[in-house]
Amino acid sequence: MMGPNFARTFGGHPMKLYHAANSGNAFKARLLLSLLGLEHEIVDVKLAAGDNRTDAFLALNPRGQIPVLVDGDRVIWDSQAILVYLARRHGGEDWLPLDADGMTEVMQWLAVAENELLFGLARARAVLLFDRAWNYEQCKTLGEAGLQVLEAHLADRDWLAVDRPTIADIACYPYVALAPEGNISLSPYAAVQAWIGRVQGLPGYVDMVGITRQ
Amino acid sequence: MMGPNFARTFGGHPMKLYHAANSGNAFKARLLLSLLGLEHEIVDVKLAAGDNRTDAFLALNPRGQIPVLVDGDRVIWDSQAILVYLARRHGGEDWLPLDADGMTEVMQWLAVAENELLFGLARARAVLLFDRAWNYEQCKTLGEAGLQVLEAHLADRDWLAVDRPTIADIACYPYVALAPEGNISLSPYAAVQAWIGRVQGLPGYVDMVGITRQ
Repeated sequence: MMGPNFARTFGGHPMKLYHAANSGNAFKARLLLSLLGLEHEIVDVKLAAGDNRTDAFLALNPRGQIPVLVDGDRVIWDSQAILVYLARRHGGEDWLPLDADGMTEVMQWLAVAENELLFGLARARAVLLFDRAWNYEQCKTLGEAGLQVLEAHLADRDWLAVDRPTIADIACYPYVALAPEGNISLSPYAAVQAWIGRVQGLPGYVDMVGITRQ
Repeated sequence: MMGPNFARTFGGHPMKLYHAANSGNAFKARLLLSLLGLEHEIVDVKLAAGDNRTDAFLALNPRGQIPVLVDGDRVIWDSQAILVYLARRHGGEDWLPLDADGMTEVMQWLAVAENELLFGLARARAVLLFDRAWNYEQCKTLGEAGLQVLEAHLADRDWLAVDRPTIADIACYPYVALAPEGNISLSPYAAVQAWIGRVQGLPGYVDMVGITRQ
C-alpha cells in the first residue's frame, strides 16, 4: 500500500475534492484518497453559507451535496460512488474485489453505511451539531441497531468484508467513529472500537475533526 | 435477454427469495431474478406477524429485513447487495459494468435509491400504508428532491446509467413507481413516467401490487 508521501499525479492535474471538514461523507473520500496515496486538492465548500446551492455547484452535483470528486474531465458525486471510482480506477482489486462473492460482501456494508449509519448515526449527530429537525430518538434507535449488527459481525473478524480492509470499512468508519458527537456512546461495542483502532492504524490514515485517535 | 420462460436451474436447487408482496425492496430482487430468467422460489415473510424477528430469520439476516436471497450455501441480505450478486454471478456485465466509469455511474444511482428514494419516497408510503411514525412532510420533501434529480437526468436519456438498463434502474424503479401510494404524484415528472414505461417493457418484467402498468 502506498502512503501519502508517495503521491502520484495524473497528467499534472491532481484530483479535486469538494469537501467540508465536518462531513463524515466527505471524509470517506478524503480518507481513501490518502490511503491510496493519491495527490488531491481540497476545495472547501461552506454549507452554512449555501455554497452547495449555487448554480455552479449544482452543475457539478444536482443533489447539492458534498463530496464531489473531479478527476480530469470526470465529475463524480456521492460518497459511495467516489469510493467505488477510486477503488476501481486507482486501487486494483485491493479495495473492491470484482468476483461476485467478494463484491457482494462489500456491497452489503455499503448498504449499512447508507442506511443505519447515515440515517441513524449521522442524522442523530446532525440534530445535535447542526440543529437539523430530524427526530433524534428515531435516529438513535436506527443507529444503535446498526452498531449492534457491526458489533456481532466484528466479534470474530478484523475487517467487514473479505478479510482485508476494503471500501466497506471506509464507508462505515466515519459515522461510527463520530457517533459520540451524536451522544451515542461506543462503550457497549468493544469489537467496533477495536476495528476503529485498526482503521486508524492503516498506512496513510488521516485525521478528521471530531474523531479521536485511539 | 432471457425471459422467465427460459428459466435456468443450478444443480437442481433453485434460489430462494425471502420476500413480502408489499415491499419495494423485495420487489427489486424479484424483478431482476425474472429479467434474468432465473428460477426461484418465493418464501413469503409476514412482517406484520414478526416473522422477520424470529431467531431463524435473524440467523439469515441480522438486520431483520427482507429481502434475503439464498443461492445454494450463499446467503445474501440487502436488496442492493442482492442486485449486485445476481448481476455479477448470473448477468455477465449486462446489468453491472465492471469498468471504473460504468460501475461508478451505476453506483451513483444505487446511492440515490438508498437515500432520497428509500428514506424519502418509501418512508412517505410507509407512513400512509403501514402507520410508521416517520415525519411525513420530511419524507415527502426528500423524496421529491430525488424525483427532481431523476427527472432532470432522464430528460435526455432512456436509462439511468451507461445507456442501457442496469441495476441502477432496477434499484430506483420500485419506490418511484410506488410513490403515488405515498400520496406523491408523478404528474410533474414526464421523463420519469416515460422511464417507468420503459422498465415495464423489459422482457421478463413482472408486476408488483401497487404499481400500475402504463
